[in-house]
Amino acid sequence: MADKYVDIDTLKYLLYDVHELEKLLKRERFVDHDKESLDMFLDSSKDFADRELFPYFKEMDENPAFHKDGQVYVHKQVETMMKKGGELGFISSSFDYEVGGLQIPLMASTASSYILDAANNHLPGYAGLTQGAAELIIHFAKKDLLDKYVPEMLAGNWGGTMCLTEPQAGSSLSDIVTKATPHENGYYNISGQKIFISAGDNQYLDNIVHLVLARVEGAPKGTKGISLFIVPKNRKLDDGSLEPNDVTSVADFQKMGQKGYCTTHLGFGDKEDCRGWLVGEENNGLRCMFVMMNAARIGVGRAASAISSAAYYASLQYANERPQGRKLSSDGKKNVEESQSLIIEHPDVRRMLLLQKAVVEGSMSLVLLAAKYYDLESTAQSKEEKIKYNTLLEMIIPVVKTYPSDAGAYSVNNGLQVLGGYGFCSDFILQQYYRDIRISAIYEGTTGIQSQDLLGRKITMNNGEGLKLLLAEIIETITKASNYPELKEYCDSLSKKIKLSEKILQTLMPYALKGDFEKYLADASIFMEFFSLVIVGWNWLEIAANSQEALKNGDKKYSEIFYKSKIETMKYFFEYELPKTISHSEIIMNPSSVTIKKEGEILI
Amino acid sequence: MADKYVDIDTLKYLLYDVHELEKLLKRERFVDHDKESLDMFLDSSKDFADRELFPYFKEMDENPAFHKDGQVYVHKQVETMMKKGGELGFISSSFDYEVGGLQIPLMASTASSYILDAANNHLPGYAGLTQGAAELIIHFAKKDLLDKYVPEMLAGNWGGTMCLTEPQAGSSLSDIVTKATPHENGYYNISGQKIFISAGDNQYLDNIVHLVLARVEGAPKGTKGISLFIVPKNRKLDDGSLEPNDVTSVADFQKMGQKGYCTTHLGFGDKEDCRGWLVGEENNGLRCMFVMMNAARIGVGRAASAISSAAYYASLQYANERPQGRKLSSDGKKNVEESQSLIIEHPDVRRMLLLQKAVVEGSMSLVLLAAKYYDLESTAQSKEEKIKYNTLLEMIIPVVKTYPSDAGAYSVNNGLQVLGGYGFCSDFILQQYYRDIRISAIYEGTTGIQSQDLLGRKITMNNGEGLKLLLAEIIETITKASNYPELKEYCDSLSKKIKLSEKILQTLMPYALKGDFEKYLADASIFMEFFSLVIVGWNWLEIAANSQEALKNGDKKYSEIFYKSKIETMKYFFEYELPKTISHSEIIMNPSSVTIKKEGEILI
Repeated sequence: MADKYVDIDTLKYLLYDVHELEKLLKRERFVDHDKESLDMFLDSSKDFADRELFPYFKEMDENPAFHKDGQVYVHKQVETMMKKGGELGFISSSFDYEVGGLQIPLMASTASSYILDAANNHLPGYAGLTQGAAELIIHFAKKDLLDKYVPEMLAGNWGGTMCLTEPQAGSSLSDIVTKATPHENGYYNISGQKIFISAGDNQYLDNIVHLVLARVEGAPKGTKGISLFIVPKNRKLDDGSLEPNDVTSVADFQKMGQKGYCTTHLGFGDKEDCRGWLVGEENNGLRCMFVMMNAARIGVGRAASAISSAAYYASLQYANERPQGRKLSSDGKKNVEESQSLIIEHPDVRRMLLLQKAVVEGSMSLVLLAAKYYDLESTAQSKEEKIKYNTLLEMIIPVVKTYPSDAGAYSVNNGLQVLGGYGFCSDFILQQYYRDIRISAIYEGTTGIQSQDLLGRKITMNNGEGLKLLLAEIIETITKASNYPELKEYCDSLSKKIKLSEKILQTLMPYALKGDFEKYLADASIFMEFFSLVIVGWNWLEIAANSQEALKNGDKKYSEIFYKSKIETMKYFFEYELPKTISHSEIIMNPSSVTIKKEGEILI
Repeated sequence: MADKYVDIDTLKYLLYDVHELEKLLKRERFVDHDKESLDMFLDSSKDFADRELFPYFKEMDENPAFHKDGQVYVHKQVETMMKKGGELGFISSSFDYEVGGLQIPLMASTASSYILDAANNHLPGYAGLTQGAAELIIHFAKKDLLDKYVPEMLAGNWGGTMCLTEPQAGSSLSDIVTKATPHENGYYNISGQKIFISAGDNQYLDNIVHLVLARVEGAPKGTKGISLFIVPKNRKLDDGSLEPNDVTSVADFQKMGQKGYCTTHLGFGDKEDCRGWLVGEENNGLRCMFVMMNAARIGVGRAASAISSAAYYASLQYANERPQGRKLSSDGKKNVEESQSLIIEHPDVRRMLLLQKAVVEGSMSLVLLAAKYYDLESTAQSKEEKIKYNTLLEMIIPVVKTYPSDAGAYSVNNGLQVLGGYGFCSDFILQQYYRDIRISAIYEGTTGIQSQDLLGRKITMNNGEGLKLLLAEIIETITKASNYPELKEYCDSLSKKIKLSEKILQTLMPYALKGDFEKYLADASIFMEFFSLVIVGWNWLEIAANSQEALKNGDKKYSEIFYKSKIETMKYFFEYELPKTISHSEIIMNPSSVTIKKEGEILI
């Protein structure tokens, strides 16, 4: 197994230098934190990941979670992740003091989780879903429910889940049928089936608190009739003891990857004795659920980026150690008298490594930027500021979820290829990253759904005001970078892409205006690829400008080679990734509709 | 599991109508065959695949080949593949009558193998390597060796392998060290280690005939000092009995996919009692090996295309059965009173299905075209004709190996995405195809190596004469297709790509001419992507022209919808895949050298 899974220097550089976390620390909410205390938190995350997560990564793949006699069994490190992780503050860190949290910025807790994800992506989800469920309870549930559940959850004694998907509905939440019947004692009787429930069950924790979407009888059809309930695996009696709440683990889905992170099929109310407690108002459940959706989507992007980071360092190590082949001499031949080169010397291998580095660090920056917007929104000092950062976050969130997932899989694919035949073999770890990361493009809304969200909702939001705001941020980076003659060419290149994005939207908008949404959205996934490259290109230009400034100032915080490698990787991104946008624009602006079904036609 | 893995109509349409197999049957070698007899052969392949291959596909993944006490154990269907497959002619079909073959064209045996590969890609390799080993013996070994080995191999009683790779050398064959010491009795004593030997061992066959590359003591360094040997697992004594030949199964590599197809580590001569018999001349081994390399590379492309075919029909079936979501109405909303749509109605799902269909049928056509060139070369009636078709085959072979592998993986990736969460689950078959196909880009020379071959050797071959010949074939298709006004736009598009390829080569050539091969070849993999799309675009235009003609003539051989769907899929390819070439050209023509290592630089 490789020795390194994340570059802490790069993570801290992006966190403090590029995305300026310290500025955020001046805000009231974060006043007790400084760089030193946050560094300690990150270092303790790395230490925990090194000892408790990374060593079990392969073992968890080889010993998947499984279902037996109504119970899901998971690897013993799940208990460590929850209980020890809970003690160390990895679940509660970004929560309010008053519920037992540390009030650290989401930027810092995202960096911490990134480290854990990179070390072993099968484990942090157990904590992440517990955070999400707790957040919903804190935001929307009554005080007595909060007091009953949240402290146990944030301590890591109880887990939490989100129960949305049902077999007949899939991504179409309009069609869920799980039933909630009000009971005179204030609770609801719940009955139904939920599938694909991540962290849905395990043998180690005393309780699991499910946040369940269901329909109260007589509620309106569609998403307007969905309510949110707390449905614990065990209900707590007045004497503090727990009794079963008729929640059954029906099965555990066996998967191609992320095998240690269980994916459960749950049954509620088989014996008509399953109780749920309303969170928020009746029929307002989906709106509540969406409050934690942005954080969940940042989480998926973060984990995907982290997996591609771990894969990158594994293939980099191999490329630095493996001799094979020789450089071509000027007659186009190889001199067999020479000893073999390390494969990292070959341009095609370097291309694959630079590709990985560009995706890994570009997506890492993107994820931290989203967390920064989140922090700036949640600590905004005026309504305008709150709207501004909420809008920026909403604009980039589909990209934050999708780019690290799709480009991450592409990056890991290249990482595997660096190893040749060994990349396909179970003795090497690349194949596991290749399998694990594939789920990211499906979790929390597939790439298709994110793309519809981006083009259908976000781009058109407030008559395009959100887009304008985002473009203004990008132009600010271009202006800053233009101060360095070395970066001029890349500034021009990104400016052209902004113009191209305007041209694309001018071509598409008339379809939306005349109500032909099928045509407007038909190439949403291609638009997502286009737009993601522009957004990540912007991140790379910001990184390059920062590194260029450090070089100019003789900044010694990191080595000269560190800064130079950032600029080289930016160049790679602009020369090999960003040009793909030209093809995307041609595809999208083609007026043909070959993907739209014609009346009576059958696709064979 | 899905019901369908290949569309026999499309396979026969490409074979007989587009690539005109019947014209080939007029040649002396194939005079005993007609369409009817070849159809029977294909139908018997389908029948065999339905009964003996497809039903065991998942089972073989779940029960991988394994090594125990010096023996590799494989699934029982390996025996059926070899012995029953041998009886039915699936090993010998394209061989000469005089060695027990049926002299059917490679085009027809490729179509037959395509069916087997699509049904279960873990099995046909056992037969394929036996064919390759037999071919080498027939071409280069003395008559007594041929008589001893080939009949047993073509009957499926004995297996065969190709032993090239060694641990320290990988793809760099210059560096192999397996030793051959001449013995006075005419054989050589062999000692060394070979890894990644597909079909390297099994418990069912009496013997396995390894074709081994080794160095005779004192031979020149590099590839000029490599010789080829027959090294059987068991040697045949004069009385016909077999005795062990000191070939040891050291281990079996455990892999991410294609788990039923064993990948063995073999040791030769641990007890100094391993005998090998020279094939061809000493030091001429690599040249011999390369005789079967084209067929082997067609085989890899064929299997990859076949896997993507099976994945396509599995995701198509799901999309035709799964209701989810609704069409957007003209106000951009969904009407929840309507019942859910089948997901095949959604443009984004149709895009993913058309993408798959375009890759599957485009690569199927490409593979059959390569087999056609092979047949035309091997039955050429003049030296000029032989050179012509050999040149055409050499030109396209790197693409035939690579495009089905890389675009196939991309296609299967989209097929998995069609199923959403179920695509990642082991209960659905897409995830297995996703894992299985990943090896194709590594087998028989990785994508990187194929790309160096394409740009470094093939494009420059005979001062670019090969490229000219190939472009003339493409222009012939464009001329033919130009007769149909419906296709005019696509003809123009492909013509432009030919011009663009000339422009790219004009930009690159000066680097080669001044001896800077590192720069000339730095973007060979991007050039491969570019060139593959042009070649497959050409195949699609040929298919569309043929279908358009059938529609014009009211040809009833296939349904109108069949022909129309071919034309629609061509459009998809030209509108969604071919435009990627614009980005490739920009990337390749950029004079920057970010992937080439600078003196003293460290990539972090």
